[in-house]
Amino acid sequence: MAKTDIFNSVPDLKYSEERPKTNSDEFEKVIEARRSIRLYTAEPVPPEIVEKCLDIALKAPNSSNLQQWQFYWIQNQEKRKAITEACFNQPAAKTAAELIVAVARTDTWKKHAEQMLEAFKDQPIEVPKSAVEYYKKLCPIVYNQGPLGLFGVLKKIGFYITGLTRPIVREPTNQADMRVWAHKSTALACENLMLAFSAYGYDTCPMEGYDSKRVKSILGLPKKAEICMIVSAGKRDVKGVYGPRVRFPREQFIFKV
Amino acid sequence: MAKTDIFNSVPDLKYSEERPKTNSDEFEKVIEARRSIRLYTAEPVPPEIVEKCLDIALKAPNSSNLQQWQFYWIQNQEKRKAITEACFNQPAAKTAAELIVAVARTDTWKKHAEQMLEAFKDQPIEVPKSAVEYYKKLCPIVYNQGPLGLFGVLKKIGFYITGLTRPIVREPTNQADMRVWAHKSTALACENLMLAFSAYGYDTCPMEGYDSKRVKSILGLPKKAEICMIVSAGKRDVKGVYGPRVRFPREQFIFKV
Repeated sequence: MAKTDIFNSVPDLKYSEERPKTNSDEFEKVIEARRSIRLYTAEPVPPEIVEKCLDIALKAPNSSNLQQWQFYWIQNQEKRKAITEACFNQPAAKTAAELIVAVARTDTWKKHAEQMLEAFKDQPIEVPKSAVEYYKKLCPIVYNQGPLGLFGVLKKIGFYITGLTRPIVREPTNQADMRVWAHKSTALACENLMLAFSAYGYDTCPMEGYDSKRVKSILGLPKKAEICMIVSAGKRDVKGVYGPRVRFPREQFIFKV
Repeated sequence: MAKTDIFNSVPDLKYSEERPKTNSDEFEKVIEARRSIRLYTAEPVPPEIVEKCLDIALKAPNSSNLQQWQFYWIQNQEKRKAITEACFNQPAAKTAAELIVAVARTDTWKKHAEQMLEAFKDQPIEVPKSAVEYYKKLCPIVYNQGPLGLFGVLKKIGFYITGLTRPIVREPTNQADMRVWAHKSTALACENLMLAFSAYGYDTCPMEGYDSKRVKSILGLPKKAEICMIVSAGKRDVKGVYGPRVRFPREQFIFKV
Protein backbone atom coordinates (compact mmCIF):
# COMPACT_ATOMS: atom_id res chain seq x y z
CA MET A 1 0.00 0.00 0.00
CA ALA A 2 1.28 3.45 -0.92
CA LYS A 3 0.68 4.72 2.62
CA THR A 4 2.84 2.05 4.18
CA ASP A 5 5.54 2.71 1.60
CA ILE A 6 5.84 6.43 2.16
CA PHE A 7 5.80 5.93 5.91
CA ASN A 8 8.15 3.00 6.15
CA SER A 9 10.85 3.06 3.52
CA VAL A 10 13.65 5.57 3.35
CA PRO A 11 14.02 6.63 -0.28
CA ASP A 12 17.50 6.68 -1.82
CA LEU A 13 17.40 10.30 -2.93
CA LYS A 14 20.98 11.43 -3.38
CA TYR A 15 19.93 14.63 -1.62
CA SER A 16 21.21 16.04 1.62
CA GLU A 17 21.15 19.36 3.38
CA GLU A 18 23.69 20.72 5.85
CA ARG A 19 22.08 22.64 8.67
CA PRO A 20 23.41 26.17 9.22
CA LYS A 21 25.14 26.77 12.55
CA THR A 22 22.57 28.21 14.90
CA ASN A 23 22.85 30.30 18.04
CA SER A 24 20.52 29.30 20.86
CA ASP A 25 21.26 32.40 22.99
CA GLU A 26 20.12 34.65 20.16
CA PHE A 27 17.03 32.51 19.64
CA GLU A 28 16.10 32.71 23.31
CA LYS A 29 16.26 36.51 23.10
CA VAL A 30 13.70 36.39 20.28
CA ILE A 31 11.46 34.21 22.48
CA GLU A 32 11.86 36.50 25.51
CA ALA A 33 11.23 39.63 23.42
CA ARG A 34 7.93 38.25 22.13
CA ARG A 35 5.22 39.41 24.45
CA SER A 36 1.60 40.07 23.51
CA ILE A 37 1.51 43.83 23.03
CA ARG A 38 -1.74 45.63 23.73
CA LEU A 39 -0.63 49.19 22.91
CA TYR A 40 1.73 50.34 20.17
CA THR A 41 3.53 53.60 19.40
CA ALA A 42 2.84 55.40 16.12
CA GLU A 43 6.11 54.09 14.61
CA PRO A 44 5.49 52.27 11.32
CA VAL A 45 6.93 48.88 10.33
CA PRO A 46 8.91 49.10 7.08
CA PRO A 47 6.97 47.16 4.41
CA GLU A 48 10.05 45.10 3.52
CA ILE A 49 10.15 43.82 7.12
CA VAL A 50 6.49 42.76 6.91
CA GLU A 51 7.22 40.97 3.63
CA LYS A 52 10.17 39.13 5.18
CA CYS A 53 8.12 38.10 8.20
CA LEU A 54 5.36 36.78 5.94
CA ASP A 55 7.91 34.79 3.95
CA ILE A 56 9.21 33.30 7.20
CA ALA A 57 5.64 32.40 8.18
CA LEU A 58 5.35 30.35 4.97
CA LYS A 59 8.41 28.32 5.96
CA ALA A 60 6.57 26.66 8.84
CA PRO A 61 5.98 22.93 8.62
CA ASN A 62 2.43 22.06 7.62
CA SER A 63 0.29 19.00 7.20
CA SER A 64 1.29 16.99 4.10
CA ASN A 65 2.80 20.23 2.74
CA LEU A 66 -0.67 21.19 1.54
CA GLN A 67 -0.06 24.78 2.70
CA GLN A 68 -3.59 25.23 4.01
CA TRP A 69 -3.00 28.84 5.10
CA GLN A 70 -3.49 32.37 3.84
CA PHE A 71 -2.35 35.75 5.15
CA TYR A 72 -4.27 38.94 4.46
CA TRP A 73 -2.13 42.01 5.05
CA ILE A 74 -4.59 44.86 5.51
CA GLN A 75 -3.56 47.99 3.61
CA ASN A 76 -6.80 49.59 2.41
CA GLN A 77 -7.83 52.18 5.00
CA GLU A 78 -11.55 51.41 4.84
CA LYS A 79 -10.91 47.70 5.33
CA ARG A 80 -8.50 48.50 8.12
CA LYS A 81 -11.14 50.58 9.90
CA ALA A 82 -13.77 47.88 9.45
CA ILE A 83 -11.49 45.12 10.75
CA THR A 84 -10.40 47.23 13.70
CA GLU A 85 -14.09 47.69 14.52
CA ALA A 86 -14.65 43.94 14.15
CA CYS A 87 -11.85 43.62 16.75
CA PHE A 88 -13.98 45.83 19.06
CA ASN A 89 -11.51 48.68 18.55
CA GLN A 90 -9.22 47.03 21.10
CA PRO A 91 -5.97 49.02 21.41
CA ALA A 92 -3.94 45.99 20.24
CA ALA A 93 -5.69 46.39 16.87
CA LYS A 94 -6.43 50.11 16.84
CA THR A 95 -2.93 51.36 17.65
CA ALA A 96 -1.08 48.70 15.59
CA ALA A 97 0.98 49.75 12.60
CA GLU A 98 -0.10 46.62 10.71
CA LEU A 99 -2.82 43.99 10.86
CA ILE A 100 -2.44 40.56 9.31
CA VAL A 101 -5.41 38.21 9.20
CA ALA A 102 -4.33 34.55 9.25
CA VAL A 103 -6.84 32.32 7.49
CA ALA A 104 -7.13 28.52 7.69
CA ARG A 105 -8.48 26.81 4.55
CA THR A 106 -10.18 23.43 4.60
CA ASP A 107 -10.97 23.66 0.89
CA THR A 108 -7.66 24.13 -0.92
CA TRP A 109 -6.17 20.67 -0.30
CA LYS A 110 -7.33 19.17 -3.59
CA LYS A 111 -5.87 21.92 -5.74
CA HIS A 112 -2.70 21.91 -3.67
CA ALA A 113 -2.30 18.13 -3.90
CA GLU A 114 -2.43 18.47 -7.70
CA GLN A 115 0.01 21.37 -7.46
CA MET A 116 2.43 19.17 -5.47
CA LEU A 117 2.39 16.68 -8.34
CA GLU A 118 3.22 19.53 -10.72
CA ALA A 119 5.96 20.81 -8.40
CA PHE A 120 7.54 17.37 -8.31
CA LYS A 121 8.30 17.71 -12.04
CA ASP A 122 10.66 20.64 -11.33
CA GLN A 123 12.55 18.94 -8.51
CA PRO A 124 16.35 18.65 -8.78
CA ILE A 125 16.04 15.08 -7.51
CA GLU A 126 13.94 12.16 -8.62
CA VAL A 127 10.85 12.19 -6.42
CA PRO A 128 10.13 8.75 -4.95
CA LYS A 129 7.13 6.97 -6.44
CA SER A 130 5.54 6.65 -3.00
CA ALA A 131 5.38 10.46 -2.68
CA VAL A 132 3.70 10.75 -6.09
CA GLU A 133 1.23 8.02 -5.08
CA TYR A 134 0.57 9.85 -1.81
CA TYR A 135 -0.63 13.04 -3.52
CA LYS A 136 -2.30 11.26 -6.42
CA LYS A 137 -4.15 8.45 -4.67
CA LEU A 138 -4.02 8.79 -0.90
CA CYS A 139 -4.82 12.52 -0.49
CA PRO A 140 -8.22 12.23 -2.19
CA ILE A 141 -9.11 9.52 0.32
CA VAL A 142 -7.59 11.11 3.41
CA TYR A 143 -9.01 14.64 3.02
CA ASN A 144 -12.21 13.98 1.12
CA GLN A 145 -15.32 13.73 3.32
CA GLY A 146 -17.78 13.34 0.42
CA PRO A 147 -21.22 14.91 -0.10
CA LEU A 148 -22.93 15.59 3.26
CA GLY A 149 -19.79 14.18 4.88
CA LEU A 150 -20.94 10.64 4.06
CA PHE A 151 -17.57 9.44 2.84
CA GLY A 152 -16.17 10.66 6.15
CA VAL A 153 -18.67 8.51 8.03
CA LEU A 154 -17.69 5.48 5.94
CA LYS A 155 -14.03 6.19 6.62
CA LYS A 156 -14.70 6.44 10.34
CA ILE A 157 -16.40 3.04 10.35
CA GLY A 158 -13.61 1.57 8.24
CA PHE A 159 -10.93 3.02 10.54
CA TYR A 160 -12.76 1.67 13.57
CA ILE A 161 -12.91 -1.85 12.17
CA THR A 162 -9.33 -1.84 10.84
CA GLY A 163 -8.18 -0.26 14.11
CA LEU A 164 -9.36 -3.29 16.08
CA THR A 165 -6.42 -5.30 14.76
CA ARG A 166 -3.75 -2.77 13.75
CA PRO A 167 -2.83 0.93 14.07
CA ILE A 168 -4.63 3.18 11.58
CA VAL A 169 -4.89 6.94 11.08
CA ARG A 170 -8.21 8.08 12.62
CA GLU A 171 -8.63 11.62 11.29
CA PRO A 172 -9.92 13.56 9.42
CA THR A 173 -13.37 12.02 9.05
CA ASN A 174 -15.52 15.15 9.26
CA GLN A 175 -15.51 18.91 8.77
CA ALA A 176 -14.64 19.46 12.46
CA ASP A 177 -11.47 17.40 11.95
CA MET A 178 -10.71 19.35 8.76
CA ARG A 179 -11.01 22.61 10.71
CA VAL A 180 -8.60 21.36 13.39
CA TRP A 181 -6.25 20.20 10.63
CA ALA A 182 -6.19 23.55 8.83
CA HIS A 183 -5.98 25.71 11.96
CA LYS A 184 -3.12 23.64 13.33
CA SER A 185 -0.84 24.28 10.33
CA THR A 186 -1.92 27.93 10.16
CA ALA A 187 -1.04 28.40 13.84
CA LEU A 188 2.44 26.94 13.24
CA ALA A 189 2.92 29.62 10.58
CA CYS A 190 1.53 32.33 12.89
CA GLU A 191 4.16 31.51 15.51
CA ASN A 192 6.85 31.84 12.85
CA LEU A 193 5.31 35.17 11.86
CA MET A 194 5.31 36.56 15.40
CA LEU A 195 8.82 35.34 16.18
CA ALA A 196 10.05 36.83 12.91
CA PHE A 197 8.67 40.25 13.87
CA SER A 198 10.32 39.78 17.27
CA ALA A 199 13.66 38.95 15.63
CA TYR A 200 13.42 42.10 13.50
CA GLY A 201 12.82 44.24 16.60
CA TYR A 202 9.05 44.58 16.25
CA ASP A 203 6.20 43.49 18.46
CA THR A 204 2.97 41.58 17.89
CA CYS A 205 -0.29 40.53 19.45
CA PRO A 206 -2.20 37.43 18.36
CA MET A 207 -5.90 38.28 18.69
CA GLU A 208 -8.88 35.95 18.89
CA GLY A 209 -11.22 38.66 20.15
CA TYR A 210 -12.99 39.55 16.91
CA ASP A 211 -16.23 39.06 15.05
CA SER A 212 -15.16 36.29 12.65
CA LYS A 213 -18.33 36.65 10.57
CA ARG A 214 -17.67 40.34 9.93
CA VAL A 215 -13.95 39.79 9.25
CA LYS A 216 -14.77 37.08 6.70
CA SER A 217 -17.30 39.32 5.03
CA ILE A 218 -14.84 42.26 4.89
CA LEU A 219 -12.26 39.99 3.23
CA GLY A 220 -14.83 38.35 0.96
CA LEU A 221 -13.91 34.87 2.18
CA PRO A 222 -15.91 31.74 1.35
CA LYS A 223 -17.66 29.58 3.95
CA LYS A 224 -14.87 27.03 4.35
CA ALA A 225 -12.23 29.70 5.04
CA GLU A 226 -11.83 30.37 8.77
CA ILE A 227 -10.13 33.15 10.65
CA CYS A 228 -7.35 31.49 12.64
CA MET A 229 -6.16 34.64 14.37
CA ILE A 230 -5.43 38.28 13.65
CA VAL A 231 -1.83 39.28 14.27
CA SER A 232 -1.18 42.96 14.91
CA ALA A 233 2.33 44.35 14.62
CA GLY A 234 4.21 47.51 15.48
CA LYS A 235 6.52 48.95 18.13
CA ARG A 236 5.45 48.49 21.74
CA ASP A 237 4.35 51.49 23.72
CA VAL A 238 5.86 51.70 27.22
CA LYS A 239 2.41 50.68 28.50
CA GLY A 240 2.02 47.92 25.90
CA VAL A 241 2.86 44.91 28.11
CA TYR A 242 0.18 44.34 30.71
CA GLY A 243 2.42 42.50 33.19
CA PRO A 244 5.10 39.83 33.56
CA ARG A 245 4.53 36.60 31.63
CA VAL A 246 2.34 34.33 33.76
CA ARG A 247 2.82 30.57 33.33
CA PHE A 248 1.62 27.91 35.73
CA PRO A 249 4.22 25.41 37.06
CA ARG A 250 5.78 23.36 34.25
CA GLU A 251 4.83 20.14 36.09
CA GLN A 252 1.24 20.83 35.03
CA PHE A 253 2.18 20.64 31.36
CA ILE A 254 5.33 18.57 30.95
CA PHE A 255 5.05 14.89 31.76
CA LYS A 256 7.89 12.40 31.58
CA VAL A 257 6.20 9.11 30.92
CA MET B 1 -19.38 45.31 30.56
CA ALA B 2 -16.22 43.54 31.61
CA LYS B 3 -15.53 42.37 28.09
CA THR B 4 -15.61 45.86 26.64
CA ASP B 5 -13.44 47.11 29.50
CA ILE B 6 -10.66 44.63 29.10
CA PHE B 7 -10.68 45.10 25.36
CA ASN B 8 -10.96 48.85 25.23
CA SER B 9 -9.25 50.55 28.11
CA VAL B 10 -5.51 50.63 28.64
CA PRO B 11 -4.84 49.97 32.32
CA ASP B 12 -2.42 52.25 34.15
CA LEU B 13 -0.14 49.49 35.39
CA LYS B 14 3.21 51.09 36.21
CA TYR B 15 4.79 48.10 34.48
CA SER B 16 6.95 48.05 31.43
CA GLU B 17 9.35 45.65 29.80
CA GLU B 18 12.35 46.49 27.64
CA ARG B 19 12.74 44.07 24.76
CA PRO B 20 16.17 42.44 24.46
CA LYS B 21 18.14 43.32 21.31
CA THR B 22 17.48 40.60 18.79
CA ASN B 23 19.39 39.35 15.77
CA SER B 24 17.28 38.61 12.72
CA ASP B 25 20.11 36.93 10.78
CA GLU B 26 20.57 34.40 13.57
CA PHE B 27 16.82 33.84 13.72
CA GLU B 28 16.63 33.19 9.98
CA LYS B 29 19.31 30.51 10.35
CA VAL B 30 17.11 28.75 12.92
CA ILE B 31 14.21 28.89 10.45
CA GLU B 32 16.34 27.60 7.56
CA ALA B 33 17.82 24.82 9.68
CA ARG B 34 14.36 23.52 10.63
CA ARG B 35 13.41 20.91 8.10
CA SER B 36 11.14 17.93 8.71
CA ILE B 37 13.61 15.11 9.33
CA ARG B 38 12.54 11.59 8.41
CA LEU B 39 15.69 9.73 9.45
CA TYR B 40 17.93 10.40 12.44
CA THR B 41 21.38 9.22 13.48
CA ALA B 42 21.81 7.31 16.75
CA GLU B 43 23.16 10.43 18.51
CA PRO B 44 21.17 11.23 21.66
CA VAL B 45 19.80 14.65 22.65
CA PRO B 46 21.07 15.71 26.09
CA PRO B 47 18.10 15.72 28.49
CA GLU B 48 18.84 19.29 29.58
CA ILE B 49 18.37 20.42 25.95
CA VAL B 50 14.97 18.69 25.78
CA GLU B 51 13.98 20.38 29.07
CA LYS B 52 15.01 23.79 27.72
CA CYS B 53 13.11 23.26 24.47
CA LEU B 54 9.99 22.25 26.42
CA ASP B 55 10.30 25.38 28.57
CA ILE B 56 10.53 27.47 25.40
CA ALA B 57 7.41 25.73 24.06
CA LEU B 58 5.51 26.90 27.15
CA LYS B 59 6.45 30.51 26.38
CA ALA B 60 4.24 30.58 23.28
CA PRO B 61 1.24 32.89 23.30
CA ASN B 62 -2.02 31.08 23.94
CA SER B 63 -5.69 31.85 24.05
CA SER B 64 -6.61 33.88 27.16
CA ASN B 65 -3.44 32.48 28.78
CA LEU B 66 -5.41 29.37 29.66
CA GLN B 67 -2.41 27.21 28.70
CA GLN B 68 -4.54 24.53 27.09
CA TRP B 69 -1.56 22.33 26.19
CA GLN B 70 0.37 19.37 27.53
CA PHE B 71 3.62 17.71 26.46
CA TYR B 72 4.34 14.05 27.08
CA TRP B 73 8.04 13.30 26.83
CA ILE B 74 8.23 9.56 26.25
CA GLN B 75 10.93 7.90 28.34
CA ASN B 76 9.55 4.50 29.28
CA GLN B 77 10.83 2.01 26.71
CA GLU B 78 7.59 0.02 26.51
CA LYS B 79 5.56 3.18 25.92
CA ARG B 80 8.12 4.35 23.40
CA LYS B 81 7.79 1.10 21.47
CA ALA B 82 4.00 1.25 21.57
CA ILE B 83 3.89 4.87 20.38
CA THR B 84 6.40 4.18 17.62
CA GLU B 85 4.12 1.35 16.49
CA ALA B 86 1.13 3.70 16.66
CA CYS B 87 3.19 5.93 14.31
CA PHE B 88 3.36 2.95 11.93
CA ASN B 89 7.05 2.52 12.78
CA GLN B 90 7.81 5.38 10.38
CA PRO B 91 11.55 6.16 10.43
CA ALA B 92 10.86 9.72 11.67
CA ALA B 93 9.54 8.10 14.87
CA LYS B 94 11.55 4.88 14.98
CA THR B 95 15.00 6.40 14.54
CA ALA B 96 14.34 9.52 16.66
CA ALA B 97 16.28 10.06 19.88
CA GLU B 98 13.19 11.52 21.55
CA LEU B 99 9.43 11.59 21.04
CA ILE B 100 7.22 14.31 22.49
CA VAL B 101 3.45 13.99 22.23
CA ALA B 102 1.75 17.41 22.15
CA VAL B 103 -1.76 17.26 23.58
CA ALA B 104 -4.55 19.84 23.21
CA ARG B 105 -6.97 20.07 26.15
CA THR B 106 -10.51 21.37 25.83
CA ASP B 107 -11.27 20.52 29.45
CA THR B 108 -8.70 22.37 31.58
CA TRP B 109 -9.93 25.94 30.97
CA LYS B 110 -12.10 26.12 34.09
CA LYS B 111 -9.38 25.03 36.47
CA HIS B 112 -6.88 27.28 34.70
CA ALA B 113 -9.18 30.30 34.82
CA GLU B 114 -9.40 29.83 38.59
CA GLN B 115 -5.64 29.39 38.71
CA MET B 116 -5.19 32.70 36.86
CA LEU B 117 -7.19 34.41 39.62
CA GLU B 118 -4.86 32.79 42.18
CA ALA B 119 -1.77 33.80 40.17
CA PHE B 120 -2.97 37.41 40.11
CA LYS B 121 -2.54 37.54 43.89
CA ASP B 122 1.23 37.03 43.51
CA GLN B 123 1.71 39.65 40.82
CA PRO B 124 4.24 42.44 41.43
CA ILE B 125 1.70 44.89 40.00
CA GLU B 126 -1.92 45.56 40.81
CA VAL B 127 -3.91 43.51 38.33
CA PRO B 128 -6.66 45.58 36.66
CA LYS B 129 -10.17 44.80 37.82
CA SER B 130 -11.22 44.07 34.22
CA ALA B 131 -8.72 41.18 34.03
CA VAL B 132 -10.06 39.71 37.27
CA GLU B 133 -13.61 40.06 35.94
CA TYR B 134 -12.55 38.39 32.71
CA TYR B 135 -11.41 35.18 34.43
CA LYS B 136 -14.10 35.25 37.08
CA LYS B 137 -17.19 36.10 35.06
CA LEU B 138 -16.51 36.07 31.35
CA CYS B 139 -14.51 32.81 30.99
CA PRO B 140 -17.34 30.63 32.37
CA ILE B 141 -19.60 32.11 29.70
CA VAL B 142 -17.13 32.09 26.82
CA TYR B 143 -15.81 28.54 27.20
CA ASN B 144 -18.74 26.76 28.77
CA GLN B 145 -20.96 24.90 26.28
CA GLY B 146 -23.29 23.40 28.91
CA PRO B 147 -24.77 19.90 29.17
CA LEU B 148 -25.22 18.36 25.69
CA GLY B 149 -23.77 21.58 24.30
CA LEU B 150 -27.09 23.36 24.89
CA PHE B 151 -25.58 26.50 26.38
CA GLY B 152 -23.42 26.68 23.25
CA VAL B 153 -26.52 26.60 21.08
CA LEU B 154 -28.08 29.41 23.14
CA LYS B 155 -24.87 31.43 22.83
CA LYS B 156 -24.83 30.91 19.07
CA ILE B 157 -28.39 32.24 18.77
CA GLY B 158 -27.54 35.15 21.08
CA PHE B 159 -24.41 36.00 19.09
CA TYR B 160 -26.38 35.85 15.85
CA ILE B 161 -29.02 38.27 17.11
CA THR B 162 -26.53 40.65 18.75
CA GLY B 163 -24.33 40.40 15.67
CA LEU B 164 -27.08 41.88 13.50
CA THR B 165 -26.44 45.31 15.00
CA ARG B 166 -22.86 45.24 16.35
CA PRO B 167 -19.65 43.17 16.26
CA ILE B 168 -19.64 40.21 18.64
CA VAL B 169 -17.30 37.27 19.26
CA ARG B 170 -18.80 34.22 17.48
CA GLU B 171 -16.80 31.31 18.89
CA PRO B 172 -16.59 28.94 20.71
CA THR B 173 -20.18 27.69 20.69
CA ASN B 174 -19.60 23.94 20.39
CA GLN B 175 -17.05 21.19 21.00
CA ALA B 176 -15.72 21.53 17.44
CA ASP B 177 -14.87 25.18 18.18
CA MET B 178 -13.28 24.15 21.48
CA ARG B 179 -11.11 21.63 19.64
CA VAL B 180 -9.96 24.29 17.16
CA TRP B 181 -9.30 26.63 20.06
CA ALA B 182 -7.13 24.16 21.99
CA HIS B 183 -5.22 22.83 18.98
CA LYS B 184 -4.43 26.36 17.81
CA SER B 185 -2.62 27.33 21.02
CA THR B 186 -0.92 23.93 21.23
CA ALA B 187 0.37 24.31 17.67
CA LEU B 188 1.85 27.73 18.52
CA ALA B 189 3.77 26.00 21.33
CA CYS B 190 4.82 23.15 19.00
CA GLU B 191 6.42 25.64 16.60
CA ASN B 192 8.36 27.13 19.51
CA LEU B 193 9.42 23.62 20.48
CA MET B 194 10.67 22.73 17.00
CA LEU B 195 12.47 26.05 16.50
CA ALA B 196 14.08 25.67 19.93
CA PHE B 197 15.49 22.27 18.97
CA SER B 198 16.68 23.85 15.73
CA ALA B 199 18.39 26.69 17.64
CA TYR B 200 20.17 24.15 19.86
CA GLY B 201 21.47 22.30 16.79
CA TYR B 202 18.94 19.46 16.80
CA ASP B 203 16.33 18.37 14.30
CA THR B 204 12.65 17.55 14.50
CA CYS B 205 9.72 16.15 12.59
CA PRO B 206 6.10 17.08 13.39
CA MET B 207 4.04 13.96 12.75
CA GLU B 208 0.30 13.63 12.17
CA GLY B 209 0.56 10.10 10.81
CA TYR B 210 -0.41 8.14 13.91
CA ASP B 211 -3.28 6.21 15.44
CA SER B 212 -4.61 8.87 17.83
CA LYS B 213 -6.86 6.38 19.61
CA ARG B 214 -3.94 4.10 20.44
CA VAL B 215 -1.68 7.01 21.46
CA LYS B 216 -4.35 8.34 23.81
CA SER B 217 -4.81 4.93 25.32
CA ILE B 218 -1.03 4.45 25.80
CA LEU B 219 -0.86 7.80 27.61
CA GLY B 220 -4.07 7.16 29.55
CA LEU B 221 -5.64 10.39 28.30
CA PRO B 222 -9.31 11.29 28.83
CA LYS B 223 -11.80 11.76 26.00
CA LYS B 224 -11.48 15.53 25.75
CA ALA B 225 -7.69 15.40 25.40
CA GLU B 226 -6.57 15.31 21.78
CA ILE B 227 -3.27 14.52 20.17
CA CYS B 228 -2.20 17.71 18.38
CA MET B 229 0.97 16.28 16.89
CA ILE B 230 3.90 14.08 17.81
CA VAL B 231 7.25 15.82 17.55
CA SER B 232 10.29 13.60 17.13
CA ALA B 233 13.76 14.98 17.79
CA GLY B 234 17.35 14.00 17.21
CA LYS B 235 20.28 14.61 14.86
CA ARG B 236 19.52 14.35 11.17
CA ASP B 237 20.94 11.49 9.18
CA VAL B 238 22.51 12.49 5.86
CA LYS B 239 19.43 10.91 4.22
CA GLY B 240 17.01 12.58 6.66
CA VAL B 241 15.78 15.43 4.44
CA TYR B 242 13.69 14.11 1.57
CA GLY B 243 14.28 17.07 -0.76
CA PRO B 244 14.45 20.86 -1.00
CA ARG B 245 11.66 22.77 0.79
CA VAL B 246 8.72 23.02 -1.63
CA ARG B 247 6.48 26.07 -1.29
CA PHE B 248 4.00 27.29 -3.89
CA PRO B 249 4.30 30.93 -5.07
CA ARG B 250 3.78 33.39 -2.19
CA GLU B 251 1.07 35.16 -4.21
CA GLN B 252 -1.18 32.17 -3.49
CA PHE B 253 -0.95 32.82 0.24
CA ILE B 254 -0.11 36.45 0.87
CA PHE B 255 -2.75 38.99 -0.09
CA LYS B 256 -2.41 42.72 0.27
CA VAL B 257 -5.95 43.99 0.64
